[in-house]
Amino acid sequence: MSQQGSRTWFFPDGDIPEPGDTEPKGHESLLMLNPQEAEAEVMITVYFEDRAPATLAPQVVGAQRVRCIRTNEPIDGYQIPLGQYALRLVSSVPIICQIGRLDVRQPNLAYYTVMGYPSD
Amino acid sequence: MSQQGSRTWFFPDGDIPEPGDTEPKGHESLLMLNPQEAEAEVMITVYFEDRAPATLAPQVVGAQRVRCIRTNEPIDGYQIPLGQYALRLVSSVPIICQIGRLDVRQPNLAYYTVMGYPSD
Amino acid sequence: MSQQGSRTWFFPDGDIPEPGDTEPKGHESLLMLNPQEAEAEVMITVYFEDRAPATLAPQVVGAQRVRCIRTNEPIDGYQIPLGQYALRLVSSVPIICQIGRLDVRQPNLAYYTVMGYPSD
Amino acid sequence: MSQQGSRTWFFPDGDIPEPGDTEPKGHESLLMLNPQEAEAEVMITVYFEDRAPATLAPQVVGAQRVRCIRTNEPIDGYQIPLGQYALRLVSSVPIICQIGRLDVRQPNLAYYTVMGYPSD
Repeated sequence: MSQQGSRTWFFPDGDIPEPGDTEPKGHESLLMLNPQEAEAEVMITVYFEDRAPATLAPQVVGAQRVRCIRTNEPIDGYQIPLGQYALRLVSSVPIICQIGRLDVRQPNLAYYTVMGYPSD
Repeated sequence: MSQQGSRTWFFPDGDIPEPGDTEPKGHESLLMLNPQEAEAEVMITVYFEDRAPATLAPQVVGAQRVRCIRTNEPIDGYQIPLGQYALRLVSSVPIICQIGRLDVRQPNLAYYTVMGYPSD
Repeated sequence: MSQQGSRTWFFPDGDIPEPGDTEPKGHESLLMLNPQEAEAEVMITVYFEDRAPATLAPQVVGAQRVRCIRTNEPIDGYQIPLGQYALRLVSSVPIICQIGRLDVRQPNLAYYTVMGYPSD
Repeated sequence: MSQQGSRTWFFPDGDIPEPGDTEPKGHESLLMLNPQEAEAEVMITVYFEDRAPATLAPQVVGAQRVRCIRTNEPIDGYQIPLGQYALRLVSSVPIICQIGRLDVRQPNLAYYTVMGYPSD
């Protein structure tokens, strides 16, 4: 069997939606699936339009587990600011990553999702 | 011609929506297209956030047929629980797989779809 | 520069929506972009859940043109039936293909799109 | 590490939506993430159904920056006309590109997004 995933993932279009007043709240979710027998340590870089990128503290995805990070909430104390952003993930083992957005700026939710762009 | 598909597919973001009260009901659909001359036997592994993965009974997709599995319904008696999950499919012959979600938590449906991440 | 596209494309999840009564009408659109200097001749195979696949008359996409086929309308006299279907496209030159669905079963439209799975 | 992106990207399904009267306005956004240490110069070709392609003035994406181009607004004085169009991007360094559409033809917005098809 192949390496079952990629070590590097890119997400060009991040834009945290307003949460709104009712459930489900507007949010963005980053999903990381680790099908390996070993834990994954993931370095996340956040890119912006008009300033240098930020690097988050390393994130762990357990062996044979999926992990969801809400990018609209603080990640180890770091809050991604409002406005256009992009992500790069570099993992210690091959993983598979997808991002989703739920927008509730109107009475009905709208979905937006894309598998990341894999590299390596 | 090439091998026409992949043997391994990953879907990081599964999350069964509430069915709601009216048609169309909220659901998730896994689509498997088998363009080969031979039947495909597909092993499906379900990953979770906080427990060991589950393996379903082998699923068959006929030669030159498409098959839809509703992941919100029992699959050979196994019901995927509510909450975040992920899928890995390993097929005996190359196939092509996509997942879709129809969410009706509000008066109007919302769609969410992604081609799987192929591997091999 | 590379070959700029693929000769074979797969779309596992086709399902023609009801047109509804108001504009925009529910539909599915298959987009084919031909960036080459030569015309593309595209053979389209339609797969089903429970019967043998159908093959359409060859379709042409002009050199350096994009073409949209509404799969809910007859294609050279052939109407794809209602229900689950899948597509394979085999082109004489490399092209790039995407499918979209616009669903109006409720008062507000819902979108569903995916780049095809390329092969070759 | 690999080359971290592709130099050529294709988007088969462009179709600028009506802006509507309220926020958020209907639009299409092209996102370009440049994770490299060097600036990216991007040549954009616009394809149509029934006429020769148009080539825009070169666009710049700063080193380690993401850039958003609203394709419904003039780009260096060139306005993409209404109707079906497609895009090819050729960059001087590897980048990662995604397109999104926000449609407000009804009271609630609808989203449509896809990672581009990478080539090279």
